[in-house]
Amino acid sequence: MSTIKEIVIKYLPEIENTIQAALADTPPFMRGVISYHFGWVDQNFEPVTSEKGKVLRPTVCLLVFEALTGNYRDALPVAASLEMIHNFTLLHDDIEDNDLERRGRPTAWSIWGKPLAINVGDFLYTLAFHQLHQLNPTRFPPETILAVQQLVTQACLDLTMGQDLDLRFEQNPAVSTEMYLDMVYKKTGALLEASIVSGARLGTSDEVMINHYREFAQNIGIAFQVRDDILGIWGDSAETGKSADNDLRRKKKTLPVLFTLSHLSGQRQTQLQSLYANSEPLSDDQIEFVRDCLETVQAHHYAQTVANEYIDKSFTALDRIGLANQAQSDLQEIARFLVSRSR
Amino acid sequence: MSTIKEIVIKYLPEIENTIQAALADTPPFMRGVISYHFGWVDQNFEPVTSEKGKVLRPTVCLLVFEALTGNYRDALPVAASLEMIHNFTLLHDDIEDNDLERRGRPTAWSIWGKPLAINVGDFLYTLAFHQLHQLNPTRFPPETILAVQQLVTQACLDLTMGQDLDLRFEQNPAVSTEMYLDMVYKKTGALLEASIVSGARLGTSDEVMINHYREFAQNIGIAFQVRDDILGIWGDSAETGKSADNDLRRKKKTLPVLFTLSHLSGQRQTQLQSLYANSEPLSDDQIEFVRDCLETVQAHHYAQTVANEYIDKSFTALDRIGLANQAQSDLQEIARFLVSRSR
Repeated sequence: MSTIKEIVIKYLPEIENTIQAALADTPPFMRGVISYHFGWVDQNFEPVTSEKGKVLRPTVCLLVFEALTGNYRDALPVAASLEMIHNFTLLHDDIEDNDLERRGRPTAWSIWGKPLAINVGDFLYTLAFHQLHQLNPTRFPPETILAVQQLVTQACLDLTMGQDLDLRFEQNPAVSTEMYLDMVYKKTGALLEASIVSGARLGTSDEVMINHYREFAQNIGIAFQVRDDILGIWGDSAETGKSADNDLRRKKKTLPVLFTLSHLSGQRQTQLQSLYANSEPLSDDQIEFVRDCLETVQAHHYAQTVANEYIDKSFTALDRIGLANQAQSDLQEIARFLVSRSR
Repeated sequence: MSTIKEIVIKYLPEIENTIQAALADTPPFMRGVISYHFGWVDQNFEPVTSEKGKVLRPTVCLLVFEALTGNYRDALPVAASLEMIHNFTLLHDDIEDNDLERRGRPTAWSIWGKPLAINVGDFLYTLAFHQLHQLNPTRFPPETILAVQQLVTQACLDLTMGQDLDLRFEQNPAVSTEMYLDMVYKKTGALLEASIVSGARLGTSDEVMINHYREFAQNIGIAFQVRDDILGIWGDSAETGKSADNDLRRKKKTLPVLFTLSHLSGQRQTQLQSLYANSEPLSDDQIEFVRDCLETVQAHHYAQTVANEYIDKSFTALDRIGLANQAQSDLQEIARFLVSRSR
């Protein structure tokens, strides 16, 4: 069985090469900022080795296509496009959230300013759409290329709608767990779904098969995000690499917190709700109080139960696909990693 | 002969209807912000009548398609998409330039904040790409739909590259008139060209004809922008509706100014260059001095000569198309208006 690292390393160089080839005609400044964001160069645009993203979306796209066809290279333009879209959202999210650091380095906007960084993001996003036109027209009929473009575009509509909800949740005192799961599906699940379904759509015209992949994808994306919420509160900080109190201190409205806000009773509920009524960070004592509230309503158990429901649906769909080959088992391995990881 | 107003009014309602239909499934907040930006609602999302954009891009797209086919409706999805792209760029440009007003009203970001406004812009941009998938697949072969998407995407790459150049020109002491014309082509010309060429590509497969339209478009776009620069300095403020000193006061690096910076000599050149070395607004006395410099090198005459060259090329290409019908003559009328307008 391959480890996650072995799976990712197999595709990473070609994914990066495809993105770099797409950037070949880009004027030096914009190419430099994008290459910095991807972790390929430093602030002076000199080559550097630094922490990179997980390239999760392109990898699952290629795995699904390979599981169906025995080959992955023909899907590289879509895989590269998905990674570019994901990184475009990170560039803009960092600006919108005023975040100063990403992957241990200053964010692009904090170096080059927001006006230029917004526009570089717009350029990268456009280049991602342009990249979808690089699919080989002798390999794929135009109807298939259009279908893939359409499903990626639909996912991007969801992405931006999810980001809108997320930005406005902070000011909204009445976010329900249902609203949260809808936001999470849009913000995280939709592009992961498009990554998997586009691989499937390129690899087969069997709609039943494509639907199994879609069901797998929809559920694994939400499970992944709920697991992320759990780790953000109860993860081992030595393994996650960030303080275990970070998410609580910043008053992130994650699933366990939203559940607790609506399932506590009496005076403690009022107390907790008033704590979350503004965006001031929590003090250590307040974090202690919130942890106590989470314990009272068994929020950890609730969140893991929700995650498990999505995990079960996801793996049932994956089994129904009924393929047995290396790529398909690598895909299962990635799925297991996504929902059971401890960091 | 139709007046500009008569031409625009013929298509405007259907262009707006198409955009509004595209927005039908958009969540209320984002739809509200976009409708505000388009001038359809006020800050509370109540219907309002306010100043709207010129809808130039969709109108020329429809005119070209109608000149070639006798009908314009089938091109409406592309026309709407072009207007949405143009408005996406305005939303983001206002943020990047910190502009507080557009069309006599507060800009979207100044009401709802930059984070939400950046994201609404991203959504509108995505919806524009989504809109390109609404072309009737029984009317147009998939290869044609892909070709139109590709040329619009290419124009958007140019757009963002042009905006990058424009943002960085302010800090660049050595902008030549060639660099300026390249920036202008990308920032303004490319989308106008895509508007005209996409109408042509949808209406005919005659590559010679399409190339005439392309040549017409490339040249009219630059002529239009140079004319805009001239009006910004020598326009009648009663007609343009803005102070005649505005562009000079803000040190906009327009074609006449760049020409003057490089064609003055001696001490006055040094003096002018040092004035433009920072971004402090000019005083009335300094404006007087700059006007004097512009006069010395006959910058008005130079700029109009440049404009005339592009106008001539543009009209020569338009003549070569050799169509004689109402839509084609309306297109000529719009072209004449673009390069001879006094406001």
